[in-house]
Amino acid sequence: MKNLLVASTSTVYGGSYLDYLLPTLKSHYKNVGELLFVPYARPGGISHEEYTQRTAKAFSNINLKVKGLHTCKNPIEAIKIAKGIFTGGGNTFVLVNALHTLEIMQPLREALFHGTPYLGTSAGSNICGITMQTTNDMPIVYPPSFKTLGVLPFNINPHYLDPDTSSKHMGETRETRIKEYHTQNTIPVLGLREGSWLEVKGETIMLKGKLPVRVFEKNKAAYEIEPNTEISTFN
Amino acid sequence: MKNLLVASTSTVYGGSYLDYLLPTLKSHYKNVGELLFVPYARPGGISHEEYTQRTAKAFSNINLKVKGLHTCKNPIEAIKIAKGIFTGGGNTFVLVNALHTLEIMQPLREALFHGTPYLGTSAGSNICGITMQTTNDMPIVYPPSFKTLGVLPFNINPHYLDPDTSSKHMGETRETRIKEYHTQNTIPVLGLREGSWLEVKGETIMLKGKLPVRVFEKNKAAYEIEPNTEISTFN
Repeated sequence: MKNLLVASTSTVYGGSYLDYLLPTLKSHYKNVGELLFVPYARPGGISHEEYTQRTAKAFSNINLKVKGLHTCKNPIEAIKIAKGIFTGGGNTFVLVNALHTLEIMQPLREALFHGTPYLGTSAGSNICGITMQTTNDMPIVYPPSFKTLGVLPFNINPHYLDPDTSSKHMGETRETRIKEYHTQNTIPVLGLREGSWLEVKGETIMLKGKLPVRVFEKNKAAYEIEPNTEISTFN
Repeated sequence: MKNLLVASTSTVYGGSYLDYLLPTLKSHYKNVGELLFVPYARPGGISHEEYTQRTAKAFSNINLKVKGLHTCKNPIEAIKIAKGIFTGGGNTFVLVNALHTLEIMQPLREALFHGTPYLGTSAGSNICGITMQTTNDMPIVYPPSFKTLGVLPFNINPHYLDPDTSSKHMGETRETRIKEYHTQNTIPVLGLREGSWLEVKGETIMLKGKLPVRVFEKNKAAYEIEPNTEISTFN
């Protein structure tokens, strides 16, 4: 039975890394002891070790130890036996490239289907979708495939941003980009605003946080779902 | 001898499609008669035909006929004999996927090296770089390669946007994204602001428009080059 938290961002404006999620994580990772951290998205290009240490510091607030997957001799086995897993944000192309190259996309998928408690933030949430094709990131590496974990029946657009009506910039808005995605693809997309997350228990998906989520389906007008509501549209 | 205009955007704030470039294009495409238009980037997912008609309307202001490459039975031959070429903006992944799939990346590269007058805007400028890896677009299709025309000795980031210091959004700024690119790559990047373009005559590259360009090189602080200056850094 899936047990996932899929968050738009690790950090909300004015807060520190993961702080707004810590009360939720305390119960989510209860009895986990040691958390397995997937550091491959490398935000700002920092090293796996540096990223793991930053994460360990945040989780020390709820007395949880953190082990970086990059330190495991057998990553596939490490994922299999992990009591809890967290994939942090950064660059989705770099993350997906690493997961495919190290051949851990499938083991990670299996662990999540078998109920290992999981947290994803940003890129780590993006990979919960069917493909990474609604990422906001630059394609700074060329991954062998855009396919991702598929533990959600839709794709995620993290850090979803409403159009700035006062902007004089002529680049595409986020909504325009997702609409372009639907000229080439049929998979629904959830635009998850910062501070929002999905709580997935088995096949039940609830929206958490204070803001509504914006839902994009092919050939439909975009619509909003309020917090503390089940996302049942795609069941 | 290369003869290129590489523009950040087709449309500036408050203007209409291509209007700010028309005086320049009038001399750039002098004696061209009929312009070959590459419509494959499909902005907003519009059809090749619709995009070509929109473009033909803009060029009718300078009495230039426009032919869509999608209507040519032999696209490779059409590129070879074209007197002038324009690649419009849209989604860079969709554009690059089409150019590779139709096997016209190389013929297009050769035409530009042989001196066919070329205009690129946005995605059409992105492909002038060595790779498309500093695009802002969503990866809505999976192209066979990120390699592009390589008629410039650097990559382009079109619609370059300075950080909004008042923003409460926690997604990466453009500068952060380009810095992440340089953790994985060595190719320099030009952040080309809207309203700016590069004028390329042979190996001489001049910055045109009213705004400076922001230059990013690996392991260097980003710096600016003023308009009407030769971009000689990478020669």
